[in-house]
Amino acid sequence: MASRNPNLAKLHAGYLFPVINQLKKVFLEKNPHVNLISLGIGDTTEPIPIPISAGMQKKAEALATKMGYSGYGPEQGSIELRQAISNQLYNTKIDPDDIFISDGSKCDIGRLQIMFGAKASIAIQDPSYPIYVDTSVIVGQTQNYNQEKSHYDGIVYMTCNPENHFFPDLAKLPRTDLIYFCSPNNPTGATATHEQLKSLVAFAKKNRSVLIFDAAYACFIQNQKVPKSIYEIDGADEVAIELGSFSKMVGFTGVRLAWSIVPKTVKFDDGHPVHADWSRINSTFFNGASNIAQTGGLASLAPEGLVEMQKLVAFYMENTRLLKETFEKKGFKVYGGMDTPYIWVKFPGMSSWDAFDHLMQNAHLVCTPGSGFGPAGEGFIRLSAFGHRENILEAVHRLGKLKMKDEG
Amino acid sequence: MASRNPNLAKLHAGYLFPVINQLKKVFLEKNPHVNLISLGIGDTTEPIPIPISAGMQKKAEALATKMGYSGYGPEQGSIELRQAISNQLYNTKIDPDDIFISDGSKCDIGRLQIMFGAKASIAIQDPSYPIYVDTSVIVGQTQNYNQEKSHYDGIVYMTCNPENHFFPDLAKLPRTDLIYFCSPNNPTGATATHEQLKSLVAFAKKNRSVLIFDAAYACFIQNQKVPKSIYEIDGADEVAIELGSFSKMVGFTGVRLAWSIVPKTVKFDDGHPVHADWSRINSTFFNGASNIAQTGGLASLAPEGLVEMQKLVAFYMENTRLLKETFEKKGFKVYGGMDTPYIWVKFPGMSSWDAFDHLMQNAHLVCTPGSGFGPAGEGFIRLSAFGHRENILEAVHRLGKLKMKDEG
Repeated sequence: MASRNPNLAKLHAGYLFPVINQLKKVFLEKNPHVNLISLGIGDTTEPIPIPISAGMQKKAEALATKMGYSGYGPEQGSIELRQAISNQLYNTKIDPDDIFISDGSKCDIGRLQIMFGAKASIAIQDPSYPIYVDTSVIVGQTQNYNQEKSHYDGIVYMTCNPENHFFPDLAKLPRTDLIYFCSPNNPTGATATHEQLKSLVAFAKKNRSVLIFDAAYACFIQNQKVPKSIYEIDGADEVAIELGSFSKMVGFTGVRLAWSIVPKTVKFDDGHPVHADWSRINSTFFNGASNIAQTGGLASLAPEGLVEMQKLVAFYMENTRLLKETFEKKGFKVYGGMDTPYIWVKFPGMSSWDAFDHLMQNAHLVCTPGSGFGPAGEGFIRLSAFGHRENILEAVHRLGKLKMKDEG
Repeated sequence: MASRNPNLAKLHAGYLFPVINQLKKVFLEKNPHVNLISLGIGDTTEPIPIPISAGMQKKAEALATKMGYSGYGPEQGSIELRQAISNQLYNTKIDPDDIFISDGSKCDIGRLQIMFGAKASIAIQDPSYPIYVDTSVIVGQTQNYNQEKSHYDGIVYMTCNPENHFFPDLAKLPRTDLIYFCSPNNPTGATATHEQLKSLVAFAKKNRSVLIFDAAYACFIQNQKVPKSIYEIDGADEVAIELGSFSKMVGFTGVRLAWSIVPKTVKFDDGHPVHADWSRINSTFFNGASNIAQTGGLASLAPEGLVEMQKLVAFYMENTRLLKETFEKKGFKVYGGMDTPYIWVKFPGMSSWDAFDHLMQNAHLVCTPGSGFGPAGEGFIRLSAFGHRENILEAVHRLGKLKMKDEG
């Protein structure tokens, strides 16, 4: 038969979250009566706000009428939605023509890798969302997995840890074609300051790199000084692509809606605008986000939707505060959780997978092992604050009683 | 800056349909009062049937409740929907675990190319849906565009024309890793017989090729003898992947829902099941189809939905009959239109783009130039029968009066 794509054979493990789901399943088969609480995958749990749901119901209803029916929309997404994103989330400072609506940031990352192709070199934060690495391996940008170093050769891992305040030492980094940077960060919960992002943009400019700024968690930023968009930095529109998402903002993880921004001023070295190729990729590998989801996005950005969005964010941030406080009371060093729905907890003397197992066995809690996000995540776990309040309170209760191994 | 992906630079033209839209736009700017009727892109026009819309409304409503809310679904799609597809469309003969729900066949084709990778060689029908070729070029499977031959070197073009009854002479074809085959065919409207598909499966088996069978138009098949699925052919489950779609079946071109079938018995030459890699690609480059769209799919396959689906198909097939009859009365040779919503019309003495222009200028009708689907499409145009009845009747009226160039 046809040969297997050698790049797929390079992948050393399954995608992290299905692996965790499998472990949960096995645990529940052995322990069928346990009420396992999942703080693992960052999946929203609270209902979609009523005005947003109402917008989608209305669209579904209209599609059954001759006047309200529409078929293929523009691959780039409805102009109304792109205008609303510009108005409500970017203070009208982004040209709607530079916004591309999609079915998710994960899918956009995959399509970006296809666009840049096998010859592009990439840098990622370590730890980071596994999709940057996995898509990079699959499109052929990397060499093999290096067991000893727990990483793929050919990718530049920008270590982010408490010692460097989760911001890489740029002076020590080699040049790459692409730099993936996520702030507020998944998984560490760190946010980059204006000064740090300024240095990052300057670094990209100096190296003639394209900066792919993943801002999927921007809505959770509480600190007014923390930039919500890379375009708050002067000159970013010459080097940066930005990703945004409705997933966590209004509970659209299942509805599927996101966007990317590619300013026409970002160019390849031959002067060709990246925007033109991105448009071609979106019309070839994609066919537009669901029109019902897009109407939901529009309802989210209407005045009533925005109010509800803020309530949802506040709800999850209170969950985060509860979890953070609990771990801190127990003497753990906790990072993140101020401007993100994630906390990043150091488990001294334990590997990430041991800590994962310890929490599952002894507190019936599912977390995400930090090492699943990259070698620099070893020794940490990520806890997601998405959850019903009663589950978070129960988790807090169980964590309060949890003994560490050496407490016997 | 980063270099442009050389594969994207190989593309010799924009994606066909945006190009046609641009020409329409220019024409309308010059002729603002013309009622241009589009029979170009195969975009559905009739409302989504009420029971299907109602299913989606109910889901959107449920998502606003604590009980009815759900976030990320399985990347492979809801098991209920996969079961319903197996039951209603494949007589329970397909294992739901081999069905993957997606946001569209176009997107699935792109992801298949990513999975098979840059080293795979491909064969396509000529003419064919442009996405097979465009995605192949972008992932790096081809050489450059050959101006003289109007094709990309490195792709095997399987000529399909009236002389060979739109089925390629397999004996003359070289081996490729992948064979894309679409029946009922877009654009020619041809359907392959059981015997032809049997020979195609045998050919794939002999050559150790993977057959990618695009059955996005299967619902339009009227002739009971024409296979609706490649799996009606013995042994196909060892070599074939199939693509199906809700787009044309229930008017979901904007809602976005499709599926692929990858039997676990289809293997790479090292014995690794293609299913495992397809699962990895779907969980890495995709995050599931919108849950509201999936509920719409489920409603389409419930008894009331199935009845409405048949009415919709019958409506478009009556449109097709009207168009086919009109061209035939005028003495044109017309192909397709028996089991597909497309007719394929030969314009003697005119290039496809000249015929396109002639119809736009003189009948204010938009068609798709056959050469846009590949070199063997030259001299033909494709007309889509998607349209409101009054528009089809008006098109028929205008076509009745249309003079060919040599009729002066």
